[in-house]
Amino acid sequence: MRARVTVMPKAGVLDPQGKAIGHALANLGFAGVGEVRAGKVIELELAESDPAKAKAQAEEMARRLLANLVIESYRVEIA
Amino acid sequence: MRARVTVMPKAGVLDPQGKAIGHALANLGFAGVGEVRAGKVIELELAESDPAKAKAQAEEMARRLLANLVIESYRVEIA
Repeated sequence: MRARVTVMPKAGVLDPQGKAIGHALANLGFAGVGEVRAGKVIELELAESDPAKAKAQAEEMARRLLANLVIESYRVEIA
Repeated sequence: MRARVTVMPKAGVLDPQGKAIGHALANLGFAGVGEVRAGKVIELELAESDPAKAKAQAEEMARRLLANLVIESYRVEIA
């Protein structure tokens, strides 16, 4: 199964990369851009064929490696 | 409207970050992990209230700033 783990900075955590993107968009002339948050997405090909087990495995990967739970939250989708 | 731009390395483009994550997962004892691809996701708050126009605006942002179209592809979702 294919799993997608999306990792975003938690609300309230400073996101300098998002801020930089917001400034760059303004400099390029884009108007009406509010908050910008930048995160990462990791797509994994898993041998596990059961969707529930694949999701549990991807969530454990997120907790143990992919996300820093102090400042980031994660979301797992299975496709 | 809230727009989410997902930027991934194109198929066939070397992805050292994804490779490093795959190795780290194997070292942690996760089995059955195939290809791993790492990309980025940018969430934008747009003043535009028409979904089609917001999507067009986010796609222009992706083409002009957020994605390097030589090696990356992007996908825009509006929520």
